[in-house]
Amino acid sequence: MKKVKVHITLKEGVLDPQGKAIQQSLHALGYEEVEEARVGKMIELQVEEGPHIEARIKEMCDKLLANPVIENYQVTLEEAVQS
Amino acid sequence: MKKVKVHITLKEGVLDPQGKAIQQSLHALGYEEVEEARVGKMIELQVEEGPHIEARIKEMCDKLLANPVIENYQVTLEEAVQS
Repeated sequence: MKKVKVHITLKEGVLDPQGKAIQQSLHALGYEEVEEARVGKMIELQVEEGPHIEARIKEMCDKLLANPVIENYQVTLEEAVQS
Repeated sequence: MKKVKVHITLKEGVLDPQGKAIQQSLHALGYEEVEEARVGKMIELQVEEGPHIEARIKEMCDKLLANPVIENYQVTLEEAVQS
């Protein structure tokens, strides 16, 4: 069993209204030092080990997890978890 | 200017319907090896340097960014970014 983390972030230049709202709320709470906030997703998968695991995860990202038009993703495979 | 990453994940035991839906969709696409999927958030902040930066970020998390009842968070301060 492997633990896989997929970090999905919006590409540079893509508007992030959720991040903007967070930044404005932080300012309203007195945290004026926050210049920018951007929101991304993190998906943690528990995957059974098998051949081509990295290639298959990349496929999953392209087909379902991320939208490659507006999002970047980064895959991190962690050490085996006891199954 | 510092770049701060806040990773927010659901606590163990808290149901994650979005993760369940992702796992079922991956199975439907033929990725049977995915045993579990859980979805979290990642918030990237650009913060002006100042005193007590870590303590202030922790406050922001508790007050606005995360829901400490059902979510855990982890703060990572990255090296200074050129401002």
